[in-house]
Amino acid sequence: MIYAHDLIVLAMNGTKELDMAGTKRILTGIRPTGALHLGHYVGALETWLEYQDSYESFFLIADYQALGDNFDDIDKITDSVRQVTIDWLSVGLDPEKSNFVIQSYVPEHAELTTLLSFITPLGMLERNPTLKGELDQLAVEKRTVGFFNYPMSQVADILLPRADLVPVGEDQAPHIEMTREVARKFNRIFEPVFKEPETKIGRVPRLKGIDGSNKMSKSKGNVIELRFTEDQVSKAVMSMYTDPNRLKATDPGTVEGNPVFQYHDAFNPDKEKVNDFKHRYREGKVGDVEVKKDLVVAINQFLDPIREKRSHYENNPNEVEAALMKGISKAREIAKETMEMVRSAMKINSYTSKW
Amino acid sequence: MIYAHDLIVLAMNGTKELDMAGTKRILTGIRPTGALHLGHYVGALETWLEYQDSYESFFLIADYQALGDNFDDIDKITDSVRQVTIDWLSVGLDPEKSNFVIQSYVPEHAELTTLLSFITPLGMLERNPTLKGELDQLAVEKRTVGFFNYPMSQVADILLPRADLVPVGEDQAPHIEMTREVARKFNRIFEPVFKEPETKIGRVPRLKGIDGSNKMSKSKGNVIELRFTEDQVSKAVMSMYTDPNRLKATDPGTVEGNPVFQYHDAFNPDKEKVNDFKHRYREGKVGDVEVKKDLVVAINQFLDPIREKRSHYENNPNEVEAALMKGISKAREIAKETMEMVRSAMKINSYTSKW
Repeated sequence: MIYAHDLIVLAMNGTKELDMAGTKRILTGIRPTGALHLGHYVGALETWLEYQDSYESFFLIADYQALGDNFDDIDKITDSVRQVTIDWLSVGLDPEKSNFVIQSYVPEHAELTTLLSFITPLGMLERNPTLKGELDQLAVEKRTVGFFNYPMSQVADILLPRADLVPVGEDQAPHIEMTREVARKFNRIFEPVFKEPETKIGRVPRLKGIDGSNKMSKSKGNVIELRFTEDQVSKAVMSMYTDPNRLKATDPGTVEGNPVFQYHDAFNPDKEKVNDFKHRYREGKVGDVEVKKDLVVAINQFLDPIREKRSHYENNPNEVEAALMKGISKAREIAKETMEMVRSAMKINSYTSKW
Repeated sequence: MIYAHDLIVLAMNGTKELDMAGTKRILTGIRPTGALHLGHYVGALETWLEYQDSYESFFLIADYQALGDNFDDIDKITDSVRQVTIDWLSVGLDPEKSNFVIQSYVPEHAELTTLLSFITPLGMLERNPTLKGELDQLAVEKRTVGFFNYPMSQVADILLPRADLVPVGEDQAPHIEMTREVARKFNRIFEPVFKEPETKIGRVPRLKGIDGSNKMSKSKGNVIELRFTEDQVSKAVMSMYTDPNRLKATDPGTVEGNPVFQYHDAFNPDKEKVNDFKHRYREGKVGDVEVKKDLVVAINQFLDPIREKRSHYENNPNEVEAALMKGISKAREIAKETMEMVRSAMKINSYTSKW
């Protein structure tokens, strides 16, 4: 709802960091509203694994943004924060290379959101087309003040680490434009503290749900979670939506947009075999069951090393916590630096030191 | 704009404080947008002097609330924070008895505002008649997200110290009703943390401006500031609006609603003399000049001990700062306690401690 695929992908330039001088800083986040699935892997995590080797990386668990329309199901958020962290660790995000951050653990976030709200015209929220669309889709009781303010909170997500580059989905463009305007206005009224972040619309490969739907969500039950057992994967794949016009194995089938082949393309390393399947499928020379059975094997082989790591982290919660604490500590260090600059520029919260 | 006479008067019950067990807690505040004047004294400070002897008192400088429509004149706020503190000290508010607090120095305020916003229906702000009226009166460029959110911020002002009694001006009643609803909803969804604050509409004696206007403001130049010199007082009083229908001293004059007599009633301790003036004024037997000259003397006598204290504090800024720091420290102690309860009830910002 809030982010494309519930993900934010923000890149930031961390030129102020001595030890990382010249290294660009990446912050990318997720709303913690459930365990991650194969769609997250293909749409985001795969790219994050590249980021952590090239950038100073910050991976944000945006729990405030999840609260906006999930205040009545906090257990889901609480559980998800842990699941997401274990998911990240299991796919190979490395807390030594990158920083894991929980939004609500960085209180400077709420403070910056508050301060920036005083220079942000109300019309920016009222006229934001993405926000308007999202509010209209929400049940009335979920239209909270917090949800209304989430683009403001996202501005703070980006400006707290003084971002200068923000790759996001197209639906997020209005929020980034708002961020630029707020940064520009702050710099003009007070002192130049923020860079105007550049928008970079990225190409995000997307998987369909196993029901063929373009929107994957746990509540629809149309996802294959990274934590699924072999049996769960088998059950999910065997029930997968394919070509509805193909009634028997001898009918010619359609490969394009067919989830079974999307998943084969994404997770089956044997490209030759996949091409053979596609060829025979189009000709009506292979049954769904055979294609699916092979997909079960491919996905389970892909998930096996992830499962192994997950098992380790599930048995060592201290390591999960340590990963978070290291990242949060780094994030707060930068956040405090920014807030010093902001307070000094605004001449607030430090009146007394000036007497 | 935001508060009746720019003042909030909130009373709170501090039953959780061991050393103050059974003592009610008062929090009362002001938007720092200028030095205080005689209207503030009569409308608020005089009562506060009583509060500090009967209650555990918190006096709040609501700088966030001032920023909402003064972001373009921060110097005014910065200067005002210092002036207001010195005004308070000069009239006899005692930092040993009471606590002086600056809103932006208590970062828990922004955090609580953020968290409560997630359970507060947007409609509460959209339909709030006081807020609507205030927004309509603001120039478009002053209608900020921060201003729109100020009732939310006021809810946090009241709930952060877990208030159960809130005496305010009538125009503030919708905000207190909103506070009650938010408290009730929080307690219902999560755990009972907040008392529903009771609204107590107080009788606030009001002075007119020296131009006879009901609205006193520094920008109108119709106030007598507590820091005025003897000459400034004299000039202000001698130019005071009286009875416009009385053209010469022998015309019978009107006492009721006449600012000169309002000020005499408030500041001249010689009630017999004041009654004699009133009698002669109604009969056309005394000139404006005589009545005003005596008022100059009365106000200057009233201000003299205040001036003496002011002079002391202006020469000892460390004492001013120490007064603030003591109060802020106490406020944060309570705020942290509340936030622990809130985070625990919401199960957020402490996920890691539960693994």
